[in-house]
Amino acid sequence: MPDALSRPYAERLDATDPLASLADEFVVADDALIYLDGNSLGRLPHRTRQRLRAVVEHEWGSGLIRSWSTWVGEPVRVGDRIGAVLLGAGEGQVLVGDNTTVNLYKLAAAAVDEARERDPRRTRIVTDSGNFPTDRYVLEGLAAERGMSLDLVDLPELDPITASSLTHVLDDRVAVLSLSLVDYRSAAIADLAGIQAAADAIGAHAVWDLSHAVGAIPVELDAAGATLAVGCTYKYVNGGPGAPAFLYVRRDWQDRLRQPVWGWFGQTDQFAMGPGYHPATGIGRFATGTPPMLGVAAVAEGVELLGEAGIAALRAKSVALTGMVIDLHDAWLVPLGFTLASPRDPAVRAGHVSLAHPEAYQACQALIEGGVVPDFRAPDRLRLGLAPATTSFTQVWDAMDRLRRIVTSGDHLRFPVARAAVT
Amino acid sequence: MPDALSRPYAERLDATDPLASLADEFVVADDALIYLDGNSLGRLPHRTRQRLRAVVEHEWGSGLIRSWSTWVGEPVRVGDRIGAVLLGAGEGQVLVGDNTTVNLYKLAAAAVDEARERDPRRTRIVTDSGNFPTDRYVLEGLAAERGMSLDLVDLPELDPITASSLTHVLDDRVAVLSLSLVDYRSAAIADLAGIQAAADAIGAHAVWDLSHAVGAIPVELDAAGATLAVGCTYKYVNGGPGAPAFLYVRRDWQDRLRQPVWGWFGQTDQFAMGPGYHPATGIGRFATGTPPMLGVAAVAEGVELLGEAGIAALRAKSVALTGMVIDLHDAWLVPLGFTLASPRDPAVRAGHVSLAHPEAYQACQALIEGGVVPDFRAPDRLRLGLAPATTSFTQVWDAMDRLRRIVTSGDHLRFPVARAAVT
Repeated sequence: MPDALSRPYAERLDATDPLASLADEFVVADDALIYLDGNSLGRLPHRTRQRLRAVVEHEWGSGLIRSWSTWVGEPVRVGDRIGAVLLGAGEGQVLVGDNTTVNLYKLAAAAVDEARERDPRRTRIVTDSGNFPTDRYVLEGLAAERGMSLDLVDLPELDPITASSLTHVLDDRVAVLSLSLVDYRSAAIADLAGIQAAADAIGAHAVWDLSHAVGAIPVELDAAGATLAVGCTYKYVNGGPGAPAFLYVRRDWQDRLRQPVWGWFGQTDQFAMGPGYHPATGIGRFATGTPPMLGVAAVAEGVELLGEAGIAALRAKSVALTGMVIDLHDAWLVPLGFTLASPRDPAVRAGHVSLAHPEAYQACQALIEGGVVPDFRAPDRLRLGLAPATTSFTQVWDAMDRLRRIVTSGDHLRFPVARAAVT
Repeated sequence: MPDALSRPYAERLDATDPLASLADEFVVADDALIYLDGNSLGRLPHRTRQRLRAVVEHEWGSGLIRSWSTWVGEPVRVGDRIGAVLLGAGEGQVLVGDNTTVNLYKLAAAAVDEARERDPRRTRIVTDSGNFPTDRYVLEGLAAERGMSLDLVDLPELDPITASSLTHVLDDRVAVLSLSLVDYRSAAIADLAGIQAAADAIGAHAVWDLSHAVGAIPVELDAAGATLAVGCTYKYVNGGPGAPAFLYVRRDWQDRLRQPVWGWFGQTDQFAMGPGYHPATGIGRFATGTPPMLGVAAVAEGVELLGEAGIAALRAKSVALTGMVIDLHDAWLVPLGFTLASPRDPAVRAGHVSLAHPEAYQACQALIEGGVVPDFRAPDRLRLGLAPATTSFTQVWDAMDRLRRIVTSGDHLRFPVARAAVT
């Protein structure tokens, strides 16, 4: 058995990896590139390239307007597949379209309005002060628009959020509690079922952002009793740059909520073009205008690819990949001033690992120059996104080896300090 | 000189058409197909097919996350090109992203909020009762959300809307007047400058929907004194199914308006991921979340193609095409019970022509079966969208000839009556 910190050990893990052949499903233009940013923009599947050609050349180019007879059902059909394959959600509860920001706005607004109609004293919106920026901004805007308060709760970044960590802020004046299931910085996984139950218990809506979770960890929305969620598809789902997001509304809530952007794709009997807005029954009422069909098609392919691999197998490999980063970090990087900014317990750690270092921005630039692409998050985080479908153990080993050499030699100090990193 | 109602006359117009070669710029899978639905989904340009391949395979597939350094500027850059080529709008005033429904929601909400802050008695939103459904629904939703009234004004469909046709509904309680520049049914062109001046005079915001205008007629937003507009790109701009829409906010209004969907793409210093939302200065503050980059790229190609042809030349051909439909209608279809549902005066008629007939739905189905694709709009309109970049005079002649033969023979009565057509 080779030393667990050695490259032969990583090679052996690759040799026995049941998902190793999955990498062949993706376009790899540069074999030498080590791409550790699958949590920002996932790689391009071959089948998606083919499908996009077909959508562009045949469905649009030849079919023209006639293709809308198929396209019009795709946002729900692909939503169903996301639900079945990745979210543990039964049919008719997931819709693809718009971006995550717009979808969060729609669901949070619908939830706030329902809660306040029920009880006008529900004037609080609660979120994590470390939540992803767009989530905080959307909620801040909603609170401002409706004269409500936004409570930004300071929570430890590395500890998974649980119901008990929120007890002090939950009361019967909360209309909406909105959290990310997976922290975009640390990858800590919040306790979905427990927090949902705590929100239910006080009559508040929980609105979940699954962007860093979907495709990285198994999510069981129906089983957890979740009612409202949104998420993006351009990370682990490999939907492409700016691919449409999804939203989930549990069936029994759909007809009791009214989202604020009343558009013709959410209307009953859309092409009757009737005089007043009568929202469709079901998940369709959460649609706005014309959905982006190229993006929807790309999402469909990404979902099926993950489904064939199986989310359980992907998760198992993901745990092993992130575990290897942590082991190498402990052995090689701690002496160089790095600290782990992700949970050690794999049960509450999702698909990426964050490493904190005062020179993280510069180290990131040096890695990129050398053909390793991680990402940087202000102020001091090097974030390694280890998409299990496209990342090998030897790539992880090589990247970590590159990083220790760079920082040991001081080579990264050639790069300027990021403005964002010092603010 | 051949008889103006004859096919040789149409052939002669094609022979002398300075834009005839433009059709070669587009993918034509079926030479026999007569596509008269360019006002619903424009054809696929060859260059767009190429560009989408490049975006997918090179920018996404090879460039991966690194391509965002270019992509991030595209919504404004492509917006500037739409502004310069099609809208008469100076730089930094047009942004591409979201769909028309979401963009209208953002601008109308921003406008309403500004007006009410200025004067809380401004509680009215005014639109045309015949406006495109999604426009009416968005405004209805906004009015409901904010406890305002939506006034649906009945206006004659065939007459262009002018300031004087609105005099009776404009007063100092109007916050927003929202209209389509081109009527989606009749193609009547509203008086942009005159109505804008009337709105300005009472301190209300005019919010224009340019969806059926952009690429079909020259629009001069800056010269007309327009302040707020939205529009789609999948019709005459040939951006593809569900291509992102655009919005226009005149420079002097940008920093005085705050749209409701506060997202990270509208934030100052987006990647600093700061604690509170501080909207970017300029047009960028009207962005929400991650823009759909495949769609944005397709829009860019469509705009450049129209720019090379020149909007003035496109408009001249468009007037001739719609004029030919009207001449043939008068000669052949009036005896069959058709009536013209578009303006006769070409100065106030945009790029499509609507023909009313009680059996329009059935005639539409028969045309489609025979390889002519128009569209149908409830309850009784056959709408012919004659995109000048891709439609020839002989195609128009052949389609009209087909239509008269179908209705003369009663062949269309084989098709069922549309449910939508009888409600």
